[in-house]
Amino acid sequence: MSKENSRAKFLGEFPELVEELKSELVRYGMPAEAIKWYEDSLNYNTPGGKLNRGLSVVDTYAILKGYQSIDELPQDVYKKVALLGWCIELLQAYFLVADDMMDQSITRRGQPCWYRVKEVGDIAINDAFMLEAAIYVILKKHFKQEPYYVDLIELFHDVTFQTELGQLLDLITAPEDRVDLSKFSLEKHSFIVTFKTAYYSFYLPVALAMHVAGVSDPKDLKQAHDVLIPLGEYFQIQDDFLDCFGTPEQIGKIGTDIQDNKCSWVVNKALKLASPEQRKILDDNYGRKDAECEAKCKKLFHDLDIETHYREYEEKVAQELKDKIAKTDESRGFKADVLTAFLNKVYKRSK
Amino acid sequence: MSKENSRAKFLGEFPELVEELKSELVRYGMPAEAIKWYEDSLNYNTPGGKLNRGLSVVDTYAILKGYQSIDELPQDVYKKVALLGWCIELLQAYFLVADDMMDQSITRRGQPCWYRVKEVGDIAINDAFMLEAAIYVILKKHFKQEPYYVDLIELFHDVTFQTELGQLLDLITAPEDRVDLSKFSLEKHSFIVTFKTAYYSFYLPVALAMHVAGVSDPKDLKQAHDVLIPLGEYFQIQDDFLDCFGTPEQIGKIGTDIQDNKCSWVVNKALKLASPEQRKILDDNYGRKDAECEAKCKKLFHDLDIETHYREYEEKVAQELKDKIAKTDESRGFKADVLTAFLNKVYKRSK
Repeated sequence: MSKENSRAKFLGEFPELVEELKSELVRYGMPAEAIKWYEDSLNYNTPGGKLNRGLSVVDTYAILKGYQSIDELPQDVYKKVALLGWCIELLQAYFLVADDMMDQSITRRGQPCWYRVKEVGDIAINDAFMLEAAIYVILKKHFKQEPYYVDLIELFHDVTFQTELGQLLDLITAPEDRVDLSKFSLEKHSFIVTFKTAYYSFYLPVALAMHVAGVSDPKDLKQAHDVLIPLGEYFQIQDDFLDCFGTPEQIGKIGTDIQDNKCSWVVNKALKLASPEQRKILDDNYGRKDAECEAKCKKLFHDLDIETHYREYEEKVAQELKDKIAKTDESRGFKADVLTAFLNKVYKRSK
Repeated sequence: MSKENSRAKFLGEFPELVEELKSELVRYGMPAEAIKWYEDSLNYNTPGGKLNRGLSVVDTYAILKGYQSIDELPQDVYKKVALLGWCIELLQAYFLVADDMMDQSITRRGQPCWYRVKEVGDIAINDAFMLEAAIYVILKKHFKQEPYYVDLIELFHDVTFQTELGQLLDLITAPEDRVDLSKFSLEKHSFIVTFKTAYYSFYLPVALAMHVAGVSDPKDLKQAHDVLIPLGEYFQIQDDFLDCFGTPEQIGKIGTDIQDNKCSWVVNKALKLASPEQRKILDDNYGRKDAECEAKCKKLFHDLDIETHYREYEEKVAQELKDKIAKTDESRGFKADVLTAFLNKVYKRSK
């Protein structure tokens, strides 16, 4: 199935999920205007992204069960696995609605951020809460009878907490309004991206699919974890690299990490390599809302040959991951192909 | 045990809970400054209130198990039940940190609201998330082996969602900056207070204690629910009444519901009783940040004899609850005394 078709099929499951959540509110006797509000929030904030995380649950499940294509999945099985995919998208929606408020962002996915929509404002905080709550309504309704129900709940709890820890460290390390590069380090960067991104974007979809497929021995979850977490870190480092070195055509936006004082891999690598004079250039110019300051930082990154260091990092981590994947123990039903599929999506991508 | 002593004993359990949560972050390799931040947020936002909800878990458990006093509880049992009490206080902290941001409140429990503390600001949104997440860390650590573990998790999920529903309806019915009394009604008020307050403040502590005590037949949970939800509604109506009719000495603060455009029982009752002329007075004066407008509303409430209507409501609901409690079926181990203890805390209180 083409990427477009599988995305369309996945999107086709969303309206039913919204109806189910609405009927939950009807059951509680909630007045119509509040049901409408929740429906609008769900529709505005949940679909609209690339849906890679949600789609990964379906793809991973198909590989684990030996299907050649997701077309072959029986419809009831597809629906069930897709629901878990949508639960990740709900989790992401919960984070993004809140992140946009904390970052005072203007747009998201080509539309105004939810809190910037007329009449919404700070109510968006409660809306974020209710996006998260939807996950557990769905799990209870569709998975309560499954032996792995508690595993799903705990997985969402753990990953939610991990993401919040990453977000906290990011917020206190790189506040947009107070530049202090002494707080930055490659170690902190690694922690932030692992917790803020890798767990929910890479480990969570695979672990969910593994539970449904019945391939969830702790050893197998660890095999998945030990590849997907470094892979997620690599993905984010690539993202940081492209924000600074990618062309707008490549990345579909204009990178703003330098002006936004982001704790990016690029600046952390530069801080590690910089002479005292070069460090001063960064201290004086990084995180300023000023195109000239930004250009000085970019020049320094070129002088330090960050691009070459990135290429070296990329080749090294890709080789390590390939080696690790090659050693996958498939004796309990786990499949190395699950991990290869993820690596192929990330390695050498340019957007 | 005196009220002060039982509060002090309960408070004495909190530092250990903070240490446990911190050690969870240490286990994740979280940098020290982020651990310190979380510790500060936990300490600033969780204790400091009356702790009635948390204490109710302990009190209810003691009654169900036939202890005369909470002194008699074995220390390990006390600790376990108190932890669930603290989980409710964490849930409340999560709501209050967010509510204060949405209401743009200035102080809470005699100190600046968390989001108004220097360096915190909008990071408070993520801090609220992490207060909620703490609940499930604690449950997993201390209750995973219990047969009622899933019940506890689902109870927290359900009540969290219910509270958020109540908060949503409140926010869209009574925005502080747009007065529209046509949105108000006694039915909506009932929904808001039931969902926003009664579930987590009255039903949750009792249901938690029932699960731990092994008195959790659905029929018994329903018996508790059917008294505690109307009792919680009564409690909030009383709160609304006292905000308008109580003296500052009685309620320990100056009521601001009229100026804040609150969807209070008082205004809803008045709307129901008002002639078209009186309705116009409300339309023109309710929800204005103006002492004269407030005084006109208060005069109207007196003219409509809201106080007498309140007394009638109070006597009626108290009698109904007493009658219902008298019919409690104790055959499976549930105790009417649990409910009486709650009623006695609410009936005719003046603060």
